[in-house]
Amino acid sequence: MDIKSLEMLLEDVKGDKVTVEEAIEKLKDLPFKDLGFAKIDNHRELRVGYPEVIYCEGKTTEQVKAIIEFMDSKKVNILATRANKEMYEKVKEICSKAEYNELGRTIIVKNKDITATESYIAIVTAGTSDIKVAEEAAVTAEILGNRVKRIFDVGVAGIHRLFNRLEDIRGAKVIIVIAGMEGALASVVGGLVDKPVIAVPTSIGYGANFNGLAALLSMLNSCASGVSVVNIDNGFGAAYLASMINKI
Amino acid sequence: MDIKSLEMLLEDVKGDKVTVEEAIEKLKDLPFKDLGFAKIDNHRELRVGYPEVIYCEGKTTEQVKAIIEFMDSKKVNILATRANKEMYEKVKEICSKAEYNELGRTIIVKNKDITATESYIAIVTAGTSDIKVAEEAAVTAEILGNRVKRIFDVGVAGIHRLFNRLEDIRGAKVIIVIAGMEGALASVVGGLVDKPVIAVPTSIGYGANFNGLAALLSMLNSCASGVSVVNIDNGFGAAYLASMINKI
Amino acid sequence: MDIKSLEMLLEDVKGDKVTVEEAIEKLKDLPFKDLGFAKIDNHRELRVGYPEVIYCEGKTTEQVKAIIEFMDSKKVNILATRANKEMYEKVKEICSKAEYNELGRTIIVKNKDITATESYIAIVTAGTSDIKVAEEAAVTAEILGNRVKRIFDVGVAGIHRLFNRLEDIRGAKVIIVIAGMEGALASVVGGLVDKPVIAVPTSIGYGANFNGLAALLSMLNSCASGVSVVNIDNGFGAAYLASMINKI
Amino acid sequence: MDIKSLEMLLEDVKGDKVTVEEAIEKLKDLPFKDLGFAKIDNHRELRVGYPEVIYCEGKTTEQVKAIIEFMDSKKVNILATRANKEMYEKVKEICSKAEYNELGRTIIVKNKDITATESYIAIVTAGTSDIKVAEEAAVTAEILGNRVKRIFDVGVAGIHRLFNRLEDIRGAKVIIVIAGMEGALASVVGGLVDKPVIAVPTSIGYGANFNGLAALLSMLNSCASGVSVVNIDNGFGAAYLASMINKI
Amino acid sequence: MDIKSLEMLLEDVKGDKVTVEEAIEKLKDLPFKDLGFAKIDNHRELRVGYPEVIYCEGKTTEQVKAIIEFMDSKKVNILATRANKEMYEKVKEICSKAEYNELGRTIIVKNKDITATESYIAIVTAGTSDIKVAEEAAVTAEILGNRVKRIFDVGVAGIHRLFNRLEDIRGAKVIIVIAGMEGALASVVGGLVDKPVIAVPTSIGYGANFNGLAALLSMLNSCASGVSVVNIDNGFGAAYLASMINKI
Amino acid sequence: MDIKSLEMLLEDVKGDKVTVEEAIEKLKDLPFKDLGFAKIDNHRELRVGYPEVIYCEGKTTEQVKAIIEFMDSKKVNILATRANKEMYEKVKEICSKAEYNELGRTIIVKNKDITATESYIAIVTAGTSDIKVAEEAAVTAEILGNRVKRIFDVGVAGIHRLFNRLEDIRGAKVIIVIAGMEGALASVVGGLVDKPVIAVPTSIGYGANFNGLAALLSMLNSCASGVSVVNIDNGFGAAYLASMINKI
Amino acid sequence: MDIKSLEMLLEDVKGDKVTVEEAIEKLKDLPFKDLGFAKIDNHRELRVGYPEVIYCEGKTTEQVKAIIEFMDSKKVNILATRANKEMYEKVKEICSKAEYNELGRTIIVKNKDITATESYIAIVTAGTSDIKVAEEAAVTAEILGNRVKRIFDVGVAGIHRLFNRLEDIRGAKVIIVIAGMEGALASVVGGLVDKPVIAVPTSIGYGANFNGLAALLSMLNSCASGVSVVNIDNGFGAAYLASMINKI
Amino acid sequence: MDIKSLEMLLEDVKGDKVTVEEAIEKLKDLPFKDLGFAKIDNHRELRVGYPEVIYCEGKTTEQVKAIIEFMDSKKVNILATRANKEMYEKVKEICSKAEYNELGRTIIVKNKDITATESYIAIVTAGTSDIKVAEEAAVTAEILGNRVKRIFDVGVAGIHRLFNRLEDIRGAKVIIVIAGMEGALASVVGGLVDKPVIAVPTSIGYGANFNGLAALLSMLNSCASGVSVVNIDNGFGAAYLASMINKI
Repeated sequence: MDIKSLEMLLEDVKGDKVTVEEAIEKLKDLPFKDLGFAKIDNHRELRVGYPEVIYCEGKTTEQVKAIIEFMDSKKVNILATRANKEMYEKVKEICSKAEYNELGRTIIVKNKDITATESYIAIVTAGTSDIKVAEEAAVTAEILGNRVKRIFDVGVAGIHRLFNRLEDIRGAKVIIVIAGMEGALASVVGGLVDKPVIAVPTSIGYGANFNGLAALLSMLNSCASGVSVVNIDNGFGAAYLASMINKI
Repeated sequence: MDIKSLEMLLEDVKGDKVTVEEAIEKLKDLPFKDLGFAKIDNHRELRVGYPEVIYCEGKTTEQVKAIIEFMDSKKVNILATRANKEMYEKVKEICSKAEYNELGRTIIVKNKDITATESYIAIVTAGTSDIKVAEEAAVTAEILGNRVKRIFDVGVAGIHRLFNRLEDIRGAKVIIVIAGMEGALASVVGGLVDKPVIAVPTSIGYGANFNGLAALLSMLNSCASGVSVVNIDNGFGAAYLASMINKI
Repeated sequence: MDIKSLEMLLEDVKGDKVTVEEAIEKLKDLPFKDLGFAKIDNHRELRVGYPEVIYCEGKTTEQVKAIIEFMDSKKVNILATRANKEMYEKVKEICSKAEYNELGRTIIVKNKDITATESYIAIVTAGTSDIKVAEEAAVTAEILGNRVKRIFDVGVAGIHRLFNRLEDIRGAKVIIVIAGMEGALASVVGGLVDKPVIAVPTSIGYGANFNGLAALLSMLNSCASGVSVVNIDNGFGAAYLASMINKI
Repeated sequence: MDIKSLEMLLEDVKGDKVTVEEAIEKLKDLPFKDLGFAKIDNHRELRVGYPEVIYCEGKTTEQVKAIIEFMDSKKVNILATRANKEMYEKVKEICSKAEYNELGRTIIVKNKDITATESYIAIVTAGTSDIKVAEEAAVTAEILGNRVKRIFDVGVAGIHRLFNRLEDIRGAKVIIVIAGMEGALASVVGGLVDKPVIAVPTSIGYGANFNGLAALLSMLNSCASGVSVVNIDNGFGAAYLASMINKI
Repeated sequence: MDIKSLEMLLEDVKGDKVTVEEAIEKLKDLPFKDLGFAKIDNHRELRVGYPEVIYCEGKTTEQVKAIIEFMDSKKVNILATRANKEMYEKVKEICSKAEYNELGRTIIVKNKDITATESYIAIVTAGTSDIKVAEEAAVTAEILGNRVKRIFDVGVAGIHRLFNRLEDIRGAKVIIVIAGMEGALASVVGGLVDKPVIAVPTSIGYGANFNGLAALLSMLNSCASGVSVVNIDNGFGAAYLASMINKI
Repeated sequence: MDIKSLEMLLEDVKGDKVTVEEAIEKLKDLPFKDLGFAKIDNHRELRVGYPEVIYCEGKTTEQVKAIIEFMDSKKVNILATRANKEMYEKVKEICSKAEYNELGRTIIVKNKDITATESYIAIVTAGTSDIKVAEEAAVTAEILGNRVKRIFDVGVAGIHRLFNRLEDIRGAKVIIVIAGMEGALASVVGGLVDKPVIAVPTSIGYGANFNGLAALLSMLNSCASGVSVVNIDNGFGAAYLASMINKI
Repeated sequence: MDIKSLEMLLEDVKGDKVTVEEAIEKLKDLPFKDLGFAKIDNHRELRVGYPEVIYCEGKTTEQVKAIIEFMDSKKVNILATRANKEMYEKVKEICSKAEYNELGRTIIVKNKDITATESYIAIVTAGTSDIKVAEEAAVTAEILGNRVKRIFDVGVAGIHRLFNRLEDIRGAKVIIVIAGMEGALASVVGGLVDKPVIAVPTSIGYGANFNGLAALLSMLNSCASGVSVVNIDNGFGAAYLASMINKI
Repeated sequence: MDIKSLEMLLEDVKGDKVTVEEAIEKLKDLPFKDLGFAKIDNHRELRVGYPEVIYCEGKTTEQVKAIIEFMDSKKVNILATRANKEMYEKVKEICSKAEYNELGRTIIVKNKDITATESYIAIVTAGTSDIKVAEEAAVTAEILGNRVKRIFDVGVAGIHRLFNRLEDIRGAKVIIVIAGMEGALASVVGGLVDKPVIAVPTSIGYGANFNGLAALLSMLNSCASGVSVVNIDNGFGAAYLASMINKI
């Protein structure tokens, strides 16, 4: 509510077109409306295909099932991340549209059509073990309405594999680079493209990798410009941000 | 050089329109051209206003002066980051166009006009001590051709200051959030907007801050979606990425 | 024993009202009594409703059962923390009054009535996953004789949820803020209230969260004044301290 | 502004007692007022003796001087922390009331009388090197209107020194324990008293102390209940919180 | 392809000895050939006995089985590391030549004869618990065509055991030293020989060992010259490098 | 072999009392004998009751059984640490003298009588959870021939418990202090006695304890003189060292 | 005061040999006397040659001078550690007996004769850079009345240097091993002797040494039994403990 | 001394060609000679051009000067690392042959001719700031008698620079890769060559680089085989090892 609308409302009160009670009703939650919270809260349901998201880690199978059942009744699209197979099977019982991505550990329910963007997000991984994070990112990006190109297993140990796919990478509007171990791929890709690179360190590795710390620090210190970083294994977060950029 | 151009070149050799020497000259650096490196390497000089960047940390005043003198002779725009005042004064002697931003520790030389974007980058800081990183970001964004809005000192300890500026923040195409101490501002802003947020942890703080580690970890673990992180105090990197996004 | 009592005792010895042996008996453990240890040691049993506390982690089910059985025979109130369900079931066999809080993993036995304070402790969590720590805190606070208000799932990613409950938070005499991930909620609450805030980082999160380190450092570096921190997941400790403050 | 006041205002608009412009003026910043920010923002100036606080680290002497000059003109009390002697000398030139605590590195300006509480805050240090943090805490507590007892150099290496002062410690309403090295004093005091203990780790020590990390971890893991922790060397923060508790 | 070959090719095009199509065929993958990737990619299959390597960690038994079945059909030698016994048993079903080293957790398949070098690699361990890493290294070195001497359990706690084997150690062309706990053996061996020492920290130990960090830091800080370090528990990597050096 | 013996041997060669071959035989392993290694290696078997020690962690039950069976046949005393109950039961089958300490996870076999020292080692723990480490220490100390006094559960949270046992602690020749959480007990005991204190941090605790790091750093930074530290949970190591000191 | 003395005092009160006032005077500080603190506090002055110790780090030259002047007037022996040369020169002005050890940065004042023990402490260093810590230890040990043998620069990179001095090391009653970098010397010495070894990690090194962390972790994880560790660079602490053991 | 020499010596004693005293003289340090230490100790002086090495960090200018003066008198080659300019100037006064490498901070004195190997060591750096470490390596390698190729500033941010120099890198017998920031260059080079790669992390960078930790962890986790790592900034160590390999 801007100053103009407020003025009009007050004039209406003055002119008896609006009762005091009605005005109070409109004004009492002004703080939130005016701050724009409503936009955030409502836009998900309003825009076609924008999904409800459930982070399943730490939730019981029963809880996940109940939440999805409720959401499904609202006929919105649903994305559940970090979901194990047992969760999927229970969900499937009450929601036949549910689809499971075993590698990415995601459940999706498409109740509304999703129109994908023309521009695409490139999702690039260093190794095959990073694919599970990549699939979480890909499923997320797709249900958010983005076209995705998967470019997997192009790590720097055999850098010609990367060059073979360079055209596809450069054609993207935004690039997600997913790598464990030393995470060098983010810097190499960042040096080869002129597009935003979102780097996702993974916990793939052992010993002095310290569960992804090596890749994380590596990516934060990238000598290439245009690279930013999200949390270790956070495929969802990278895709959410990439979707924002891809849809600009 | 694509297959088509290559075919034409070879036909020209065959038809004696191009000598073998000329063809060699064109082909010998084919590997790089074909990989597209040239685009990266050349676009900086080619596009009006795209600056050459010098990272001054660890360089001597004499080195900085010499590099800027050389670049200035090419009539390109120049951005020097992490430059101290002494460097600026020496540079000023040989390059009268040089401008110094004392807080941001940047030297810029504008040899070509820069047309700013209509959309803008919001640069938001938690405290006044974070402004030096913010100024590095702002100067970088501006010389890269972006309109910038500075929204400083709106940290969560007095969250109403943030809400006062929320409209300006939400109006941006991309937002840079710069915060030291516990870095909570990135999450709060991330929760209030639906735009890409680039978080810059700063080394402002003491004790268990561990030179920015607290803010860094805080930002990497942000509960808000759409937030990614660059290195501690890396105002330049955040602005470079923001410029990529803002210019999409 | 103060100087006065000592003087009287010595006069009694002098006047043969007390034998040397009796005086020795009274004086020999003077060091501890005089240091006031006894107060600490005795006040728990003496004051109505003050519970005996058992930390079950690392104890066997049989040990927990035996300890509670013994305490129950003394008719004091009992609080067992970090107790699993199996422990509860065994305890229930020998102590029908035992109550289990599954989320908070606490067993309580109320042998004496507890009168709750009028003022209350607000227990605020960022996410639903933090509730298990919150329940440990709530059960602890309640058996210590405090009124508690639970204000759950008001994290900064959707800050309007927090503002909706602000009145309840501000009405408290002391506030416990429980948050994992980046722990930003502690700073935001600290900035909005003028009451002591006890921050509890939780181990909720993954990757660069490092089992609660991110939230811990975040809270220690809070830019808001009036915030102090207890150990990761230490709901009991926060509630114990909050009770001290609430009862002043 | 509560519902009642809003109703009255609207009735006044309706009854032409208040013009639309006046109503807008009152309503336009409703969001903040209603959220209660104003209370926080205003209470400092309103309540007698509540000081304005300046954190001098990272500010220039000129900046500190200018801020204090401005505040002094408003005739409020002023507390500047982490101020070096040069800052004080410059401030003294324009503000003759300024007092410097060399150990605590604080400047205070008392423009209004401060009435101290009857109850007191005990400030306890392990060693003599911790006194500088203790003085920051003491000066802060005093200008916030608290009575303070300084109990210095009672570390556990000679635990009888602590027992000599136990009565003074136990007489306090809240206790600040300041210790570097291994920080054991917090646990020992926590075990001896039944009062809130705010522990301040200091950076005193060397080697495996890691600039206060040892004391910090020690205090966070205290086996005594009722102990919470603030940042390393954060005397101000501890005193601010202690003042909140002491004034309940 | 050097300039000379390029010139000749172009002359052939000019002289119609080579068609444009043929020239394009030769030139289009010039980038990779010229960069020499082919050498790397092809030499494994070309040289007799050079194995294909599979890192089994994180792969399913079925995946490992399928990969080995495919490779076996190409009649190359195969090395699978970090393979558990179940994997071996499944592989054995379809590949009777498969051999399992239980300690080293390696599967090898020898389809081509391997001629071992005359010079040898000494593989030295501090304790018996380090042998599993040593066996991974030994099997790797052997299938890469190296003679190996195993010198196990000669840690510095009983340094005479080391001296008893000194001649064997000094006779090697390159030495792999494998040690957990404090990793001191690397420095001691490094001080006694004039040969390259590749140090492998192991995760053997507990407490302040931090899963191999103690040995890792110890080895990186070795006071003896000629010592370099690979990742914790990385027997394969050490052997791969040692093989390179041994075959010079 | 000292200079004198060498001279005599050479004189014998010269005088034909010893052949060159015999002299070579005696001289060729001179390096080790002369360095005194033999003393170390032999004294264990030679001195009555000195045990053979087996560290069972990472060994299979079968391996432990086989080693003990072999040692038992030599009729020496045996100490196996970090042994689980299953190991003990298997060992018991072939060695009826085997005794198991369930808390300390030790197996001992006494084949020779052990005469305990008159002076004793005090083994002091902060909490009941530390007793398992204490029992490992106690069993080790006893089989090494030391008298031991167990003084358990005297942590600083209830410091009067410690004072109650102070006489016993001060009567010891050397003191082992075992504590988890914040490890403050080591400093407090160190400040109360004038005897060597060997501090053992334990992994008891959670959260910011980081598996014993808090106690470890705390003990290394002890403000009390005369305190040294062994690895986390290393009861055996502490007892081995204490035995050395106690037997001086 | 034991029970007997207490009985006698009370009999004297009863028999009017002692007034009530006199008895109170004797009894009122009973708590401390009885706990034995007095022994600790008094024995330093009572025993000939036992020094007062001043840790100079963080103290001003004036403070150090004043403390030594006061102590000197009591005619006790004095040891000041971490003292710089300027401190020494100022002290020398008022105390002509003061002696300075430049490497060890110690000032000593001998007001009473010191009789050294017959048995000795061996102080062993790995490198020449560790000597400054060794000298702090040596001076401390000597003023505490111990005979000391300095065995410097015998690190494991040239292990024969160590063996050359092995007899001297083995002849000691207790051994201090001082090493930076990877700290391997502690394990090697621990494996060669059957005496208590006190290991002192030093901050000598760079890079992954992390200011002594590498040596510290190395020593804590020593595979040799009988090794305990003090803080990084803590020569004083090692010598204090060694003196306790040497004087048993 | 081998068995044969020993036999001959004894025969000489027997045959009176050597006195017992002379034989003792030869035999008394047999332990070390026989262990082969002598080879290590003597070979440096014996082989032409093998330098004496001085690590200057922590030494005074006077000490460095004195050591070099003494060595110079022995007419051996000398290498001093981590030497500042002042040291060089003082050395120059007494040793006119001294040469200083300002970037690498090395002083060398060539008293004997050095014949360089035909094969060469490639020294590759990511950035210009890494050159100081590279020069330390280069000077070390050269005085040890190796041919060196410097390939500087070829970091992955502009990967075509690396490919331009690939032939030179592949032509080396062993490669030193020196990189700060994220250290990705080591992996990329490791993936492109089939030669031993010695990776040197440098402390170049800021923020989450943690003084070289990021590059160190990155290199330890390299996905490319054949890469080993030395300490941060350890150019000397890398060159020493590379020389060993290059001279095989």
